[in-house]
Amino acid sequence: MSKGNLDVVGIGNAIVDVLSKTDDDFLHNNGIRKGTMTLVEAAQAEALYAKIGPGMEVSGGSAANTAAALASLGSKAGFIGKVAHDQLGSVFRHDIQAAGVTFETAPLVKGVPTARCMVLITPDAQRTMNTYLGACVYLSPEDLDEEMISGAQVTYLEGYLFDRDNAKRAFYKAAQMAHKAKRKVALSLSDPFCVDRHREEFIELVNDHVDILFANEAEIMSLYKANDFEAAISAARVQSELCAITRSEKGSVIVKDGETIEIKAEPVAKVVDTTGAGDLYAAGFLHGYTSNRDLKTCGRMASVAAGEIIAQVGARPQRSLADLLKAKDAA
Amino acid sequence: MSKGNLDVVGIGNAIVDVLSKTDDDFLHNNGIRKGTMTLVEAAQAEALYAKIGPGMEVSGGSAANTAAALASLGSKAGFIGKVAHDQLGSVFRHDIQAAGVTFETAPLVKGVPTARCMVLITPDAQRTMNTYLGACVYLSPEDLDEEMISGAQVTYLEGYLFDRDNAKRAFYKAAQMAHKAKRKVALSLSDPFCVDRHREEFIELVNDHVDILFANEAEIMSLYKANDFEAAISAARVQSELCAITRSEKGSVIVKDGETIEIKAEPVAKVVDTTGAGDLYAAGFLHGYTSNRDLKTCGRMASVAAGEIIAQVGARPQRSLADLLKAKDAA
Repeated sequence: MSKGNLDVVGIGNAIVDVLSKTDDDFLHNNGIRKGTMTLVEAAQAEALYAKIGPGMEVSGGSAANTAAALASLGSKAGFIGKVAHDQLGSVFRHDIQAAGVTFETAPLVKGVPTARCMVLITPDAQRTMNTYLGACVYLSPEDLDEEMISGAQVTYLEGYLFDRDNAKRAFYKAAQMAHKAKRKVALSLSDPFCVDRHREEFIELVNDHVDILFANEAEIMSLYKANDFEAAISAARVQSELCAITRSEKGSVIVKDGETIEIKAEPVAKVVDTTGAGDLYAAGFLHGYTSNRDLKTCGRMASVAAGEIIAQVGARPQRSLADLLKAKDAA
Repeated sequence: MSKGNLDVVGIGNAIVDVLSKTDDDFLHNNGIRKGTMTLVEAAQAEALYAKIGPGMEVSGGSAANTAAALASLGSKAGFIGKVAHDQLGSVFRHDIQAAGVTFETAPLVKGVPTARCMVLITPDAQRTMNTYLGACVYLSPEDLDEEMISGAQVTYLEGYLFDRDNAKRAFYKAAQMAHKAKRKVALSLSDPFCVDRHREEFIELVNDHVDILFANEAEIMSLYKANDFEAAISAARVQSELCAITRSEKGSVIVKDGETIEIKAEPVAKVVDTTGAGDLYAAGFLHGYTSNRDLKTCGRMASVAAGEIIAQVGARPQRSLADLLKAKDAA
C-alpha cells in the first residue's frame, strides 16, 4: 500500500485503553462524572489506577479507532499520533499496524510514557474515561506526514487534540496541508466538555477549516449553546457544510445543504460497552463517503459499524466489518 | 488480611497474556502445534508478534490465574512470581492485587522484561500459546516468602516452573517449606509437552513431594506413558495421594485412596476461549478443599469455575465466582 494514496488519514491521540468494570457507586465516591472524558495528570492517573479493578489493555484513541475500523471496512487508512518508546507504545503500534493501518509516526524517545485511558464500564454499558495523555502531548507539526495527508481523500481530526497546544498547532497545519491538496477535512467534536473547553476555537474551526463535522447530541448542543436538539440542528444547517450527528439509540441525523436525512440506529441484541460508538460511526460514514456513496448509504454503514462496536468490549472491531456490511446487505 | 493466614498460595510464572484471534492456517503456516504451550526466546517472540493480529492484554500465568480465581471464590489467596520493573509488570501487579490476591514478590529491576504469552485463539475456541518467559526465569529460592508459604493451607505450584533451573529450585524449596509447616503441596502438570520435557523429575516429585495432583487427560497419560486413559488412572491410583484429572466436555475424575469419583462438566452455552480452564478448575477444587468440603463438592465447584472461564475471553474471571457458586447452588 502506498502511503500517499489513502482514503482517510486520522490524526489524534495514540492511547492504550485500560478497560475495567465498575459500578455507579465507585464513580460517585471518586467524584467522576459518568459518560465523560476527564484529563488526569500522571499522579492522579496512578492513584485512580490503584483503586480500580483488574483491567484489560486494548489499543484505543478516538481517531485511531476510526482508522482501525476503516481498515476493517476495506478502506485504505493511515494514522498519525505520538506514542512513547515503551511497552505500551509497542502494543499500540503493533495493534494499529496489524489492523492494516499505515502508522509511521516516530515515537517519543525520552520523557513521559505512552498515553493510557482508564475506561470504567458501568453495568448500563456506559463508559467513563480518565485519560493521562503522556506522549500524545508531544505530537507536533513536525510529525505531520505531508505525503500522507495531501494524498488522502479525507484528513480526520479528533477534537481531543485541542486539549494541548502542540497538538492543536499540528491540527491546524494538517487542515492546511489537506486543503492545499484540495482534500477534505473532517472533525469529530469528541466530548461535550472538550467542546466547552474550546468552544470559540471550535466554532471558528468548523466555519473556516472543516468540511465534515461529526458530533453527538450533547456535543452539538454544547457547540452552539443550544437549548434543544432542533436549535442545534438549525445552527449546524447554517454553519457547517456537512454534519453527522449521532443520537445513541435514536439513530443519527445527517445535515447537508439545508437537507436533513434521518438514519435509524442498528438494532443491537445487547449493548455491552459503548466505548468507540462515535469513532466507529465516523468510520462507517467515511468509508461510504470516500467510495462516493450517497449520504443515506453512508449513514447506514455508520450505523452498522457503531452497532457492532457497542455489542463487544473495547473500541477496535474484533471481526471484519467488510464482511459484516455484506452480511447486513449494507456494502 | 494477614499474609501468614492464607488458604492457598500459588507459585508460578507472572505473565501478561496477549490474546489474539487467528485461524488454523496461520498456526500451520508458522509451524505452531495447536493447543500446546511453546517457549520462545525474545527474538522469536518479536517475530511472531509482528505477524499476529491486534491483541488484547490481560494478566495471566497459570498459578496466578488460579490465585485470582480463588480470591473471586472468596478464598484467601496469595501469589509468588517474578515480573520486571516495567509497564507490563505494573499491569500484572495491579491486576492480581485488584483481584484481591496478596502479591509482594519484588520485581526484577534490570535485565529482561516481564513475561508475555501470545495466546492464539482459533475459531474452535482452542488456545495455542507461545510464551516468552522474560523476568519469570529469575524467580529464585530467595523470592519465597516463608511466612506466606508456611501459613497457607495449600501451596500450589505450576509445572511450567520446571522449564527453568532457578524456578525449579524455588519449586522444591517451596514444597519443603510447606511440608515443614505440615501444609499440603499441590501441583498442576500444566502441559503434556512440559511433562514430556521433565517426566522423570515429575514422577519423583509426585511420589515424594506432592499431596494433590492436577492434570488433564493428555498430561496424565504423558506422565505415566499410558496408552489409554484407564491405564493412566490406574497408575495415578497407585502413585498419587489425591489426583484430579480434567477431561474437557467429559468432565473430570477425582482419584483418592483407590476410590474414583466422576464429576460432570458444567454445561456452557457457547465456549469462546478455553484459556484458563485448567487453572480455574484447580481454583474451584482448592476452594472446596481448603474449606473442608467433600471431594464431590470440590469437583462440582471446580466444574462451575472452569465452565465460567471458557464462556468468556481471557483466563481471569470477569464476575464474582462466589456469586456464581451461590447462583448455581454449588456454594
